[in-house]
Amino acid sequence: QGTRDHPPAQAALRERLLGAVVSCFKRHGAAAIDTPALELETLMGKYGEETKLIYELQDQGGELLALRYDLTVPFARYLAMNKVTNMKRYHVAKVYRRDNPATTRGRYREFYQCDFDIAGQFDPMIPDAECLKIVHEILSDLQLGDFVIKVNDRRILNGMFAVCGVPESQFLPACSTVDKLDKVPWEEVRSEMVAEKGLSSEAADRIGEYVQLHGGLDLIEQLLQDPKLSQNKLAKEGLGDMKLLFEYLTLFGITGKISFDLSLARGLDYYTGVIFEAVLLQQENEHKEEVVGFGSVAGGGRYDGLVGMFDPKGRKVPCVGVSIGIERIFSILEQRLEASGEKLRTTETQVLVATPQKHLLAARLKLISELWDAGIKAEMLYKKDPKLLKQLQYCEDTGIPLAAIVGEQELADGVVKLRDVAAREEVDVPREKLVDEIRRR
Amino acid sequence: QGTRDHPPAQAALRERLLGAVVSCFKRHGAAAIDTPALELETLMGKYGEETKLIYELQDQGGELLALRYDLTVPFARYLAMNKVTNMKRYHVAKVYRRDNPATTRGRYREFYQCDFDIAGQFDPMIPDAECLKIVHEILSDLQLGDFVIKVNDRRILNGMFAVCGVPESQFLPACSTVDKLDKVPWEEVRSEMVAEKGLSSEAADRIGEYVQLHGGLDLIEQLLQDPKLSQNKLAKEGLGDMKLLFEYLTLFGITGKISFDLSLARGLDYYTGVIFEAVLLQQENEHKEEVVGFGSVAGGGRYDGLVGMFDPKGRKVPCVGVSIGIERIFSILEQRLEASGEKLRTTETQVLVATPQKHLLAARLKLISELWDAGIKAEMLYKKDPKLLKQLQYCEDTGIPLAAIVGEQELADGVVKLRDVAAREEVDVPREKLVDEIRRR
Repeated sequence: QGTRDHPPAQAALRERLLGAVVSCFKRHGAAAIDTPALELETLMGKYGEETKLIYELQDQGGELLALRYDLTVPFARYLAMNKVTNMKRYHVAKVYRRDNPATTRGRYREFYQCDFDIAGQFDPMIPDAECLKIVHEILSDLQLGDFVIKVNDRRILNGMFAVCGVPESQFLPACSTVDKLDKVPWEEVRSEMVAEKGLSSEAADRIGEYVQLHGGLDLIEQLLQDPKLSQNKLAKEGLGDMKLLFEYLTLFGITGKISFDLSLARGLDYYTGVIFEAVLLQQENEHKEEVVGFGSVAGGGRYDGLVGMFDPKGRKVPCVGVSIGIERIFSILEQRLEASGEKLRTTETQVLVATPQKHLLAARLKLISELWDAGIKAEMLYKKDPKLLKQLQYCEDTGIPLAAIVGEQELADGVVKLRDVAAREEVDVPREKLVDEIRRR
Repeated sequence: QGTRDHPPAQAALRERLLGAVVSCFKRHGAAAIDTPALELETLMGKYGEETKLIYELQDQGGELLALRYDLTVPFARYLAMNKVTNMKRYHVAKVYRRDNPATTRGRYREFYQCDFDIAGQFDPMIPDAECLKIVHEILSDLQLGDFVIKVNDRRILNGMFAVCGVPESQFLPACSTVDKLDKVPWEEVRSEMVAEKGLSSEAADRIGEYVQLHGGLDLIEQLLQDPKLSQNKLAKEGLGDMKLLFEYLTLFGITGKISFDLSLARGLDYYTGVIFEAVLLQQENEHKEEVVGFGSVAGGGRYDGLVGMFDPKGRKVPCVGVSIGIERIFSILEQRLEASGEKLRTTETQVLVATPQKHLLAARLKLISELWDAGIKAEMLYKKDPKLLKQLQYCEDTGIPLAAIVGEQELADGVVKLRDVAAREEVDVPREKLVDEIRRR
């Protein structure tokens, strides 16, 4: 339940999609790493309320193993274990969550994550700005329609909680509650704050005023003048950095899609600074059937304390990263492809080796072997004596553009009949020039 | 234990290796599929003695889940569930085994498998021959040194057991025992047969004579004349098909590396026909340090009954496939790379955007953004005012071939100084021609 097979058409679409994401990560100079899907108990105490979603394995003789929940915590463990203090990496792999699957919205229990992270002590906001640039590039490249990238900062949130009278021990729970604002209305969030998290209704109301705010540089300036927030050290730091971030994003030319949004909280405990989330916007004239596709398609932020949790001496390595919500994007592209009726080729075969008469299996085997050895993508039917029509039909069904036909006459003449399947045109090509001719086409 | 992280240098080598394997699979017209790493109880009763190596998960409320042990059983389940009777697919993914890890020999508890399989009712031995051709192509491409592909047939083995007086119920256990011949001497295998599997010592001795045989077409002809074997229906079928297989392999020009070997048994229960295994051969003048690398690097065979085990009506889909032992090959290539002292680049960055003076962060951000938007792989240091020397050092350390330098003079002149890092040569390039010039280089 909540997992799925990917038949060839889906696997081909996924390969294309992952290819676009990975090529963006490489464009930004990231190196790949790979970590095991199985982790030791290291996962516990990193995810807050979501810890319950971790898959644990049966005891394997003293080793408590769990399946990874994301790629961020394994990356932090990797940095600490190998004492790496400086790294730009990407990682594309499957993660596992015992969540309630909502497959129509692209939510599964096993799914791919595509992460890009920058670890190291650097000047403020330069790596953070690059993460946002990456989100912008990927969402633009994939032509998913209009989107907005919401940005906030945990320090601003915590400062806001402080000036609203929330005790420090309640910052993280309050954060998790604010995080639900993208799914439920403020009234519900407010009552959870008061009834479950034990906040006073005055504090909740004050929070309510702040979390409705969103904007750009103007809002940052306004909050820097806010009589309460500007007195809070954390909030001031966060707002100062947010201003710097907007300067860099202006140089990147992408502020048009960025919204500084005080309601953005992100669910996970480990964030310490900038946080962000990209959402697709519903478009006018959108087909009603496209029910998936609205909601978060990328997210991330700064987590400066996580690596230190894995280091015996608590040495910190500041990190910022982004995770592309590939599954939701995949669902959108899949629905679009279906709606368009377009058929994606699932193989890359360039030529089918065919024979027009019986008793020519040996000729086909010999020719296809020559083509494979020359690096040509070639197929043949696994029948001793297939009909020519069947062979040509196979080309049309699977989109193979060329057929290389050897009959008795061709064998005698030392040629191969090369057929353009779509155009139904045939020419005799000397056997020794066949590979070049196929490459040329 | 038995799992590992792959730092960038390893991940880059792995990407190159998987790329070579996948490109061969695509050359043979295979489509990709993807199945979940988590399977239901479907894995039980498919692997014989190796079932104990399956990783089971904690009960997740009624669902008994296990991590996949290989990619073959999930493929068979996929075919049956989706009623697919005809497919050529490849699948590259991680599998899990609670084995005793032997990491120096490239054996891990979590490791990649690269599988290519052909499912469908076809004329005999044509797909089987293609699987062997694929092994030959991949091992040749990767230049791993000399190798031999051992071939046998479960029907020949079973016929052999029958004529040696082994009761049919003991065929599979006898097979598992013969399979150990590549690791332990015949004497040990013989005593396991007699003491543990309850075979008579006469039967064991007769088996001993057969399993020492290996050769080519000549051996097939000899066994077709064998007074006992030729009377056994199964063995005769198997030998007839083996002869046909050798004909096809002759047309492919690869019989030089093929050995028909009666000691080859393969451990798994599900094989029903041709089986094969590729081994690397120790070479003269081989460095002593290269301890890994001898042993099986690919294997596979025909399993005509497996899909039927998943079909409620038992409908069979004949299959043959090959699995490339990527982990062992990886260990060999890794050791070679280490021995050679060669450094593999872990990123693909083409150009570093640099500045020679202070207060030019904005200029760098603007230029790098232009390059990214044009699809150029570019990096910059995440410092406000890095020293030029540090920036050029970074290029040398990470193998970035070009530096695009913007100083005050270049900004005023509307040019960028493009530096060839290795040659230490610089030229001024008009800003609007920079992208083309980088592409050209």
